[in-house]
Amino acid sequence: MILDPQKIELESMRIIQDTIGEYSCPPENLPVVKRVIHATADFDFLKTLYFSEGAVMKAREALIKHTPIITDTLMLTSGITKKYGLKIVCHVSDDDVISEAKSRNITRAIVNIERSVNDYPDAIYAIGNAPTALIRLCELIKEGKALPALVIGVPVGFVNVIESKNMLASLTDVPRIIAHGNKGGTTVACAIINAITYSVSVSKSQGMNTLPLK
Amino acid sequence: MILDPQKIELESMRIIQDTIGEYSCPPENLPVVKRVIHATADFDFLKTLYFSEGAVMKAREALIKHTPIITDTLMLTSGITKKYGLKIVCHVSDDDVISEAKSRNITRAIVNIERSVNDYPDAIYAIGNAPTALIRLCELIKEGKALPALVIGVPVGFVNVIESKNMLASLTDVPRIIAHGNKGGTTVACAIINAITYSVSVSKSQGMNTLPLK
Repeated sequence: MILDPQKIELESMRIIQDTIGEYSCPPENLPVVKRVIHATADFDFLKTLYFSEGAVMKAREALIKHTPIITDTLMLTSGITKKYGLKIVCHVSDDDVISEAKSRNITRAIVNIERSVNDYPDAIYAIGNAPTALIRLCELIKEGKALPALVIGVPVGFVNVIESKNMLASLTDVPRIIAHGNKGGTTVACAIINAITYSVSVSKSQGMNTLPLK
Repeated sequence: MILDPQKIELESMRIIQDTIGEYSCPPENLPVVKRVIHATADFDFLKTLYFSEGAVMKAREALIKHTPIITDTLMLTSGITKKYGLKIVCHVSDDDVISEAKSRNITRAIVNIERSVNDYPDAIYAIGNAPTALIRLCELIKEGKALPALVIGVPVGFVNVIESKNMLASLTDVPRIIAHGNKGGTTVACAIINAITYSVSVSKSQGMNTLPLK
């Protein structure tokens, strides 16, 4: 039994690498793919994860510039690494967001996105749960009101989910990572954010800009 | 496009029920199974989810008695419904837990479980991430130091995961819900807790004890 946390992580990643074998993708995407599988034990994501060209590199640059991360749930906020002092914003449980959603009979997720776009139109948007949030974000991008540094579109479920991902897929100017199909979720969004963050933090050893530890 | 949150939920559950069709289980387990699929869009859980006899009913009784829920991650704590004032405990990010784990070169998850068992030996334990937490909990149960009202054993991954679930499976006196295999995760643990909580909250209409809204 391995109990050392670092050895557990290394052994997990070794098993994943052995299993995915000859899987081919740009080198900056590989740690993201592996961390999603680490978080789900679901190799279906090898087939469904899509990265627009350069999306990970653009997200790394945005993180180095302290670009905020907007999340669709507090559960996602909670899962994102706290090691680097990233600015994470989520209004979904604010009292005034809840009351506005009730009065308009829409999801809190939509109101959260509207407020976040107003404050941070060029943030990193990570949506792991609420397809209505992703749809609203795509609408605001089309209207020219948002220009995110990255959109992570990985909501999960059966209603509006495929539609929301197709809508994001059609926005070809937007750096985007999508888990196509019904699967996805908060742990997937979290794995993507954390993998990109860790890859920035290790890039210092490669002579690149990096995130300082908090 | 459905935007009303309640209609989205109802339609999701209708699609899941249609898809699982003749799937057979005790009636109190069905809402739990469906919410896990709702949270993952992964029908593999139909085959891997195991409930010991009466586990859900025992967990309902425990919740009505305000039994605390111990979690292995703050992400899980964050995802559990806040509607009913449930007591949720997680020490995994406490400074003294982090320093003890470092000095013993073990996971924080283990130290979190040891402290929680000391304070709440008969709590509901929900483990969605850390197999080392589940293994330590099973050891403490075997030693007679813990007698949980329910153990939710659904860690995810490739190292220690199957072993931890097999260990829980062998503790036949313990009310337990297990997702066998490598899959599981924080969202699965969260779905299980929330489904049981919601089923308590609706049981009032069936003349049973219930959880008051906070």
